[in-house]
Formats: sequence, structure tokens, C-alpha cells
Amino acid sequence: MARIVQKFGGTSVADLDRIRNVAEKVKKEVAAGNEVAVVVSAMAGATNQLVSFARDIGPLHDAREYDTIVATGEQVTVGLLAIALQNMGIDARSWLGWQIPFRTDEVHGSARIEAIETEQLDKRLKSGQVAVVAGFQGIGPDGRITTLGRGGSDTSAVALAAALQADRCDIYTDVDGVYTTDPRLCPAARKLDQITFEEMLEMASAGAKVLQTRSVAMAMRHNVKLQVLSSFNETPGTMVVDEEMTMEQQKISGIAYSRDEAKVTLSGLPDKPGIAAAIFGQLADAHINVDMIVQSAAADGQSTDITFSLGEADLDKAVGLLEAARGDLGFAEISSNGKVAKVSIIGTAMRTQAGIAKTMFAILAEKGINLQVISTSEIKISVLIEADYTELAVRSLHEAFGLESA
Amino acid sequence: MARIVQKFGGTSVADLDRIRNVAEKVKKEVAAGNEVAVVVSAMAGATNQLVSFARDIGPLHDAREYDTIVATGEQVTVGLLAIALQNMGIDARSWLGWQIPFRTDEVHGSARIEAIETEQLDKRLKSGQVAVVAGFQGIGPDGRITTLGRGGSDTSAVALAAALQADRCDIYTDVDGVYTTDPRLCPAARKLDQITFEEMLEMASAGAKVLQTRSVAMAMRHNVKLQVLSSFNETPGTMVVDEEMTMEQQKISGIAYSRDEAKVTLSGLPDKPGIAAAIFGQLADAHINVDMIVQSAAADGQSTDITFSLGEADLDKAVGLLEAARGDLGFAEISSNGKVAKVSIIGTAMRTQAGIAKTMFAILAEKGINLQVISTSEIKISVLIEADYTELAVRSLHEAFGLESA
Repeated sequence: MARIVQKFGGTSVADLDRIRNVAEKVKKEVAAGNEVAVVVSAMAGATNQLVSFARDIGPLHDAREYDTIVATGEQVTVGLLAIALQNMGIDARSWLGWQIPFRTDEVHGSARIEAIETEQLDKRLKSGQVAVVAGFQGIGPDGRITTLGRGGSDTSAVALAAALQADRCDIYTDVDGVYTTDPRLCPAARKLDQITFEEMLEMASAGAKVLQTRSVAMAMRHNVKLQVLSSFNETPGTMVVDEEMTMEQQKISGIAYSRDEAKVTLSGLPDKPGIAAAIFGQLADAHINVDMIVQSAAADGQSTDITFSLGEADLDKAVGLLEAARGDLGFAEISSNGKVAKVSIIGTAMRTQAGIAKTMFAILAEKGINLQVISTSEIKISVLIEADYTELAVRSLHEAFGLESA
Repeated sequence: MARIVQKFGGTSVADLDRIRNVAEKVKKEVAAGNEVAVVVSAMAGATNQLVSFARDIGPLHDAREYDTIVATGEQVTVGLLAIALQNMGIDARSWLGWQIPFRTDEVHGSARIEAIETEQLDKRLKSGQVAVVAGFQGIGPDGRITTLGRGGSDTSAVALAAALQADRCDIYTDVDGVYTTDPRLCPAARKLDQITFEEMLEMASAGAKVLQTRSVAMAMRHNVKLQVLSSFNETPGTMVVDEEMTMEQQKISGIAYSRDEAKVTLSGLPDKPGIAAAIFGQLADAHINVDMIVQSAAADGQSTDITFSLGEADLDKAVGLLEAARGDLGFAEISSNGKVAKVSIIGTAMRTQAGIAKTMFAILAEKGINLQVISTSEIKISVLIEADYTELAVRSLHEAFGLESA
């Protein structure tokens, strides 16, 4: 007997038939004698509808009211899934964020989970009742509904698995696991049987959409055994495991990309201590996440240039902010480009194998792809390139690193 | 300066433009220096969609899950209205049933309000903040969402007005007040400037759809000054007042009808004490509301017949129950008819004026309409007739009692 948290995203609960299908997946675990908590998202499309209501009613958004509105999506799904389970003879009840409660901070729209009180839930699970839990939502310190931000249901599931000390957290999705790269972009992509937490984390933050970065980081921190699998078939998925548990040893595990990138360059900045802190402090205050940063001294030895990448959605806001602070920051010029993409190769093997970066740069150079920004971590190398070359870059790297199906 | 509770139903908040229109109505009261709490229903159609989801997912309904699902309708509206008000520069926040809280009993799907804790709300209203309150919902003793049953938002509004000791409770709807009868059925119907609580109560329970019976009873009990008016124009509405405040004195104030009626006759019952209690106790246990009851001794002096009316929706269930209990109850025959209507005339003047019943029966007899069951209260006379004669009965009575527009 094990305790399992299952998570089903929006496409898995898109209509009543699919909700019944989810109930079947739950039933299978119950029939195997397991204790089951299921975390669900809103029916696909429901959240978009609610978000556009909230946007269209007026130009000002009160994030608290926004959360009250969009949290209804998951509220509907938990009720429906609980009924579907009851109709199969399975004891089940729904739990909303405030009922458990999932306590979060007060940052409405992208709240962080602070604590989950599992006493009630634990008792019910032990008694054999399935807990159907609304993902994506919690309750803030002021007693109002909070949401965790788009995709937050993965985080809800992992946090719940950690709090309930579950044996496994199964993330059901519309793909059947984690691939070496996006199969839509590169048909030779191969499904991985396992991937390490760190690789998964880098994949997610580099743009692979299969799991939310936050949820992977949380799983790693709390050592939650994570599985990614399909809600639409019975194929085994990909297990996300500790590094010591990996069997495979390859040069790299996967290639991720993101087209929603933009680049900003500030040139002619005074070369003095604190200038980077001043720039990025301002952007952080405005909740703009900066990804890659490169600083280079200018030829005159007096000034410096800083280039950084950020989400395309934040580009206009960031440029506006920096323009307004031109006097304080003292840069000569600002330029920006919204047509860039980030391509990353990821693999724990980089730690021990030299020359992987060199190989990557050589392959891209061979294809005539110019590298605008480079950034590396212990197990990842990312490059910013012109967006038009994304497919070419991904496919070339996939082939060159031998990732295709055997 | 006054404290006002406004209530807007589903058609008044059917889309974003109408929600903005509601915000304008709220703004007007705020601009007049009043403290305002607004109770809203779900957007027209939203509840039906949610109810059909809950019905279609499986034949068994867990009423607790049903409530969790349908309560989302109001949750969306309160968030949207709060945003609309904020966009007009009005300080506003939304309140869900569990946040206030509106404490109810545990009868999911048709819960009764037991207490409203207004401490927080009171403070906010005094500070000038508009409270946007989700109608129709509360929280049960087990911490789960309850709903008050269809149309429960009127009750929410009146209960809130009582708890907040509001100076007035304005019920905005798609008609501009209470009419002598349904204008769609009888074009000569006239809007009343005022009506007494008791008349309104009888009108509502006799089928007039403008206000929910429960809400009128509650307003009468707590002496809440009630006004019915249109959300779509600026016409003065109908004030529901204490009897001593009425100016008009007419024979009758209005004519109500209901087509959703059915009739059951049990004949050949043993004429012994306790038989009525046995029958209606069983129906009450099954939550079937019985309306009119007539008992008549049979010709043989040994047995008795009982005829009663009830909602058409409950007919099959009631007949099934009674058939099953035939052995215990000992009746000879059961017959039923779902094609009946109830027509009622209402007026406090009946208390002091004799002959009104006689006039009513004479008018209906003149038109050849057979009376199947008659029931009277101090200020109401109801008759059950064949459903096909509803229009004819209402129009004839309306004319004969001189209710048409001057």
C-alpha cells in the first residue's frame, strides 16, 4: 500500500468524458489498495474565459478580485470529479484551497505556498476516502483566496505530496513523459525513462513546458518522487529521480528552447560598483524576471555594456522603466530585440565531461547561427539566438549529441 | 446618510456591460453619501450551465459537491462587480459566503441562514468601502459551502439587510415593481406603488415570481424595508410596507397564478385520527412540500378522501412514496393530475370586507371554470383549476375586481 498524489491538468479534465476518464485512473490506484489524493486544474479553456472576464470588465485589476474569479475554475472541477468518483462507488470529497487550508503569502496572482495543514486530509486518506483537491489556489493571511499563477497546479500537487509524505507524485499530462526535446519541433525526439531533478529543473526553466520550474524545485527540495505520464494512454512515463539513482549516462539529456524571449542592451554605462545592482534592483522591484546577464567592458576602458534577456511579455515595461531611470543610471544608449530565442542543452554529465560547450558552439557555428548571449550553469548551457533559427539549432544539436531514438 | 443593501439578480448581471450598469446604480447610492452592500446572483445562464454539469457527470448527486460547483457562479460575479466599481474609483471588495461568514444549517442545496457575522462588514461599510456580497451561498457547520436553493439571493439580501440593520433593501430585477398580476398574461396589469408584507408574502407563495417567499417572510419578521425596482430604468418601484403604512385600500391587491401545480387524491381512507399526520409526515420526511389540502368524508360515513396539491416536479416521487405505503395507510385508490393551475387573489382588505370569495367563485363559474380545490387564508383565496383555463381565470378576475390601469 502506498500513498499517491495524482495531478491532472486542464486538457485532462477538459470535458465530462475526460473527467470520467480521470476518475478511472484514480479508481485504478484505489483498487490497488493505495491512498489517493488527486489535484486537478480547471477544465481547459475555463481559466482563459475567467481571465478574459476579469481583464475586460475594466483596465484596473485588483489581484485579489482576479484570484476570487479565476479560482472558480478549479472549484468546478473538484466538485465534478468527486461526483464522478462517487458514481463509481468510490468514497471521495472535494477540498478547496481555503478548506484544507493551503496557506500562502499575500502575493495575489502568484502566491507562494507557506504551509499545508494536512491533519484532516491525513485522517480521511487513512479512512480510505479519496481527496479531490483544487490545484492552483490557497488562502492568504487576510483570509482571501490566492492563486499560485499559471501552471501552479503542478506546484500544488508536489507541495501536497511533500506535506502528506506521499510515496509518489504522478503528474498526468497530454504528453507521455519528458522528451529529449520538443517532438513537435524535432520528430526524432525520444522519451526519457528517467531524468534527474536537476536536469528536469534546468529543462523546465529553459522552456520545456512539461513541468513547472517551481514544482520541480519543490520536489527536489522535499525529495518527492515525481513521475510524468499521459492521462490518455497506459504507456509508462518518465521518472524524475535523484542523481545517484540514474542508470543512463549520456553526454546530455535534453534540449530545451523558449521563443518567448527578448534581449535588452544598455551601452555606455559608467563602469562603477553598484551599477548592475541599480539596474536589476529596479527591474526586480517591478517583478520583472531577468534571465541571462552579460557585462562587458567597452573599448574605452571607462564605460561598460550590459546585455540581459527577459520574458518577451515584460519587454515594453522593462524598457519604459529603464528609459525613465536614464538620468540615475547614466547609460548612453538602450536597444532591445523581441525576436530572440533561447536554446539550452542540459545534462548532469557536463560536470564530468569537458568539451561539451565547445561541441555545442561548433555545431551552431557550422550552421551559421550567431550566438548573442551565452550563459552556463553546472549542468546547462544556454545561448540566445535569432528566433528564426530555433528549429535548425534544436534539430542540429539533437542529432549531433546522439539523442534520437535508437 | 443611510445604509442600503442592493440586490441584483442574474439578468441584471448577465454580461459585462450589465455588470457595469449595476456598478452605476451602486455609484449613485455611494454618491448620495450612503453606505452600500450589494448582493449579486450568478450571471444569467451560468447557474444553469453549472447545474447541468453537476447533473451530467453522473446520476448520483452529492449535494455538498453540487453546492461547491454551483456556488462558483456568484463567486465570479462578485469579483467582476468589485473590479467594475474599483474602475469607477469606488473602494469595493468582494465577500463570499464563507468569508463573511453567512452561517447556515447543513441542508446542502437548500440551506437556511442561521447567523451572519457582520463585524468585519460593518467596519468596512463605515469606512466607506462597498461590500460586494455573493448571494445564494453560505458555509455549513462542517465548513463546506452551502447554497440556499434557487432564488436564494433575495433571501441573502434581506438577511444581510436585517443583520446590518440597513435602512432599506432594494431588490433590483427585470421588472419595475410588483404588478396586480403578471403583465405578460394580462396586459391590463398595473404596477402597485406599495403592497403590504403579508400581501407580498401571499403573492410570492401563490406563484408571483418577483420575490422569493422566504425573503419576504424574513423581511416581515425583521421589519426590513423592502423595495422592488428595475435595474434597467429609473422608474420608481414598489415599496413593500407594513399594513399601517398603506394608503391604498382596494378590495384586492393582486392576482397570482402558478402552473407548476399537481393534485393527488387518496380515496377510501380509513376515517381515523392520525391518518392525515401519517400521509403528510411521510411526504415531509421526503422534503415534499404540500400546498392545499382538502379532506372530505365519503358517503358511507366510514371512509374519507383526501386531496392535496403539490409542486408538479414532486408529483412522481409523491405518488411512488404513497403507493409504497398503501398497506400502512390503507387507502383504496390513488389518482393524480399534473395539469392543474392555482389561481389566487390576495388583499388585506379581505379581513374587513365580506363577500369577496363569493364574487370570485361567481366570476369563475360564469366562465365555466370548475374549482377542484379551494383554500383560503386571512388575506388570500386560492383555487385549483384545470391548467388550460389559467389565462381566462386571471384576466376575468383582474377585470372584475377593477385592478386594471386607471
